[in-house]
Amino acid sequence: MQFSQLVAQLATLAGSTLESSPGTDPVLTGVAAVDEANAGQISFLDEDNSLHDWLDRTAASALILPPDAALIERATARGLAWVVFPQPRLAFAAAIGAFYRPFRPQPGIHPSAVIDPSARLGYGVSIGAHVVIHGDVVVGDGAILHANVVVYPGCEIGADSQLHANCTLHERTRLGQGCVIHSGAVVGAEGFGFVPTREGWFKMEQSGCVVLEDGVEVGCNSTIDRPAVGETRIGRQTKIDNLVHIGHGCRIGEACAMAAQVGMAGGVEVGNRVILAGQVGVANKVKIGDGAIASSKSGLHSTIAAGEVVSGYPAIPNRLWLKASAVYNKLPELYKQVRSLQKRLDALEPRQ
Amino acid sequence: MQFSQLVAQLATLAGSTLESSPGTDPVLTGVAAVDEANAGQISFLDEDNSLHDWLDRTAASALILPPDAALIERATARGLAWVVFPQPRLAFAAAIGAFYRPFRPQPGIHPSAVIDPSARLGYGVSIGAHVVIHGDVVVGDGAILHANVVVYPGCEIGADSQLHANCTLHERTRLGQGCVIHSGAVVGAEGFGFVPTREGWFKMEQSGCVVLEDGVEVGCNSTIDRPAVGETRIGRQTKIDNLVHIGHGCRIGEACAMAAQVGMAGGVEVGNRVILAGQVGVANKVKIGDGAIASSKSGLHSTIAAGEVVSGYPAIPNRLWLKASAVYNKLPELYKQVRSLQKRLDALEPRQ
Amino acid sequence: MQFSQLVAQLATLAGSTLESSPGTDPVLTGVAAVDEANAGQISFLDEDNSLHDWLDRTAASALILPPDAALIERATARGLAWVVFPQPRLAFAAAIGAFYRPFRPQPGIHPSAVIDPSARLGYGVSIGAHVVIHGDVVVGDGAILHANVVVYPGCEIGADSQLHANCTLHERTRLGQGCVIHSGAVVGAEGFGFVPTREGWFKMEQSGCVVLEDGVEVGCNSTIDRPAVGETRIGRQTKIDNLVHIGHGCRIGEACAMAAQVGMAGGVEVGNRVILAGQVGVANKVKIGDGAIASSKSGLHSTIAAGEVVSGYPAIPNRLWLKASAVYNKLPELYKQVRSLQKRLDALEPRQ
Repeated sequence: MQFSQLVAQLATLAGSTLESSPGTDPVLTGVAAVDEANAGQISFLDEDNSLHDWLDRTAASALILPPDAALIERATARGLAWVVFPQPRLAFAAAIGAFYRPFRPQPGIHPSAVIDPSARLGYGVSIGAHVVIHGDVVVGDGAILHANVVVYPGCEIGADSQLHANCTLHERTRLGQGCVIHSGAVVGAEGFGFVPTREGWFKMEQSGCVVLEDGVEVGCNSTIDRPAVGETRIGRQTKIDNLVHIGHGCRIGEACAMAAQVGMAGGVEVGNRVILAGQVGVANKVKIGDGAIASSKSGLHSTIAAGEVVSGYPAIPNRLWLKASAVYNKLPELYKQVRSLQKRLDALEPRQ
Repeated sequence: MQFSQLVAQLATLAGSTLESSPGTDPVLTGVAAVDEANAGQISFLDEDNSLHDWLDRTAASALILPPDAALIERATARGLAWVVFPQPRLAFAAAIGAFYRPFRPQPGIHPSAVIDPSARLGYGVSIGAHVVIHGDVVVGDGAILHANVVVYPGCEIGADSQLHANCTLHERTRLGQGCVIHSGAVVGAEGFGFVPTREGWFKMEQSGCVVLEDGVEVGCNSTIDRPAVGETRIGRQTKIDNLVHIGHGCRIGEACAMAAQVGMAGGVEVGNRVILAGQVGVANKVKIGDGAIASSKSGLHSTIAAGEVVSGYPAIPNRLWLKASAVYNKLPELYKQVRSLQKRLDALEPRQ
Repeated sequence: MQFSQLVAQLATLAGSTLESSPGTDPVLTGVAAVDEANAGQISFLDEDNSLHDWLDRTAASALILPPDAALIERATARGLAWVVFPQPRLAFAAAIGAFYRPFRPQPGIHPSAVIDPSARLGYGVSIGAHVVIHGDVVVGDGAILHANVVVYPGCEIGADSQLHANCTLHERTRLGQGCVIHSGAVVGAEGFGFVPTREGWFKMEQSGCVVLEDGVEVGCNSTIDRPAVGETRIGRQTKIDNLVHIGHGCRIGEACAMAAQVGMAGGVEVGNRVILAGQVGVANKVKIGDGAIASSKSGLHSTIAAGEVVSGYPAIPNRLWLKASAVYNKLPELYKQVRSLQKRLDALEPRQ
């Protein structure tokens, strides 16, 4: 692919013409990080300047740059092809997409798959080896079920959804269009519902279901449980990383992102565009407003207002947490100071 | 089902007659949460009053209520059928059980299952598609192995136990009666046993096994490891949620509950009826007494006495933690106050 | 096996002769913990003296002891066979290995396995039931793929590697020799790569791959993601426990150990012989020097120098953390003291 062809594609993505190096139009063979690129490859720099030094020594033939005159000048001086894009990382993602063809198995049904006769399969589906599909399952057009996937009765899988190897959908789970369930994930299993009695735990059957709206992704080995009654629902375009647990009856909004090992107890309500960083925990029935952000490892025990950024455990506003955790590191010193103040005061105060 | 029939069932559960609305006996079609119910459905309210307002507008036809005269009066005023139960949540669980028929595959052995001839299968077992059972495995009467389950050699699976899709039992694992292993869980794999040497890690073979007593449940994608020698043992009726890790050689008592993403290092000893909330971590060889409770995200490094409630990391008594974490949020202010006190004292003290 | 035969094996391991009990040479039938051993079994004591009392009442016939004259004397007094080894735990691991024969399926290809004709299988491989191997996969000599393993296209599996049941290797993953992937683990799946745009998340295709060098072990249900470009690489002999997440583009050194539920965001760089305890989290692009240790539950947000021992969240030097967390428990008291100091000062200061 010529560099100029890629620039044209990126201009379409940006919805505007893009500034690029005049007079250079190398043939591009692929994409790489700026510190690992070889000749023929295109790379990118973003505002994060930890890699800007590589501009003077990268072997890449072309670069995507942020709108920064100094970087453009340095790239020009080295004779590199360059194109300016407001979000270089986004353009880089598009560049990868221009070169990379992800693995997609051919449409068709592998003879080793075991499919209940009551299941309805759409046009162009791909059902891999050893897949098991139980009764009353509906698989939309173009959906891909990789090897060893198991689908319990009554599930609906939207068009163009993809279920990776060894994942499991439990009874009545509904997936919208274009969902991706990564390997080993389990969606729709029984919520953890036990009522304490004098004789032990009384099992509450989980008669509800899990609904994933269009474009939801669920990471490898993550688990999303169904509730006793009603739904657990994940809003459209929400992206969930690996080893995340979402408890029974949670209602997650649209376009959220949950990093690896996040855990949510039951009945949590999450707005749209919420970001939970790695290993965050959310307690039962907590409400999180639109656009809130929780930094890694924080523990959310009560309502988080829209747009709030919280940290720590129990979670507090991020700014306060930054200050409080700085003082935490001085606690041994602070303790001594208070002791010393006490002694000095003892000495000053009149004896009684 | 008539409302009165359900009341009769609940009375059996309670072991006593129950107070209920005279003169109303609607036909019930199902069960729902009070804020989502439709006509014909039964719902419940418990002591937690966050949903009590719904009493005046729920579309449910019947309600399970706690013994609370005001609630009963309001339900009566609306003409709803009601029954009083000391633990409404327990009655609600029973009501779900009266309507919901969980998916149970038919007894029989799917022709695609691969079963070693030395395995012994009980009466009425259900062995799903693509199940693999290795040598010397014993499967008790009525046990259900869902699709794609793998059972390594020498395992024993008690009567009426259920293994969900894609889960794995490793060599010599023993399950009691009525255990449930949820999808993707791995029970009995090698403990993490490596001895440091100058040449690197020396692998300690894990020759022990995992024993789950009757009625144990293990959540989706949870892992319970076997030890180098001896047993890892989970006591009867203990319930384990998703993505929990239990290290080699742990000994867990009866009727405990471990919420999602709890992690236990090796050799931990846990008493009976212990509750560990989500993301709790327990260090090597820690002992936890009967009835102790650890709140979410706490880290247990040393002995927890019976009945103690602990929080934080390292875990301390919950009451102390509540106070200490309240002060934590004031640390920046406290730090300034100490500074100010120092200056004021400097000014007061006689110059030397 | 005679005790003297085992002593000879241990001497080979130590590379020197070993001091052992003269005149006693029992027949050994197996290995057990000192507090669970029966006659005929060999056990061990190490420097940790919590089990030393068992020396006087263990039913074991033989003991591996640290070089400690008092312990040797007590063992001799009871007529037990004993051998002294500088690292008793290492000798115990070797003793287990002398008795225990781990399950290894026979070489051969199960007829239910589905193997792409372009795959190349080495000599003596064992391919279990329902295994799926996609195109252009290379499996080295003596490798074992247990039941229901799925291997995506273009993977390379080194000689004598072992993949346990229900695990998944994604496209282009490369395993060195003697690697072990435990049940349910997923290696090489797509990194969590989404670029925020006004229209939602733009998916960055993950065109890179995961490389595990020789002797790497990956625990049950752990996940190691591939990056957008380049590699995620785990150095030789690094051991990873269960439910660990390693994000896209991490580069881990040799002979590290990562305990259960550790989570690493993207682009983390870890040196050699680093130890991360359970539930540790590491933020994006953090660098960790050789030999560093992070204690359980700590959260690493910035560079950790070689050899450092850190704790807490955000992580600080372990010694400081021990002191600070001790003061944390006194915060309520400290808060009151500062209040009291203020009042006393108020009283002392001259009125204005």
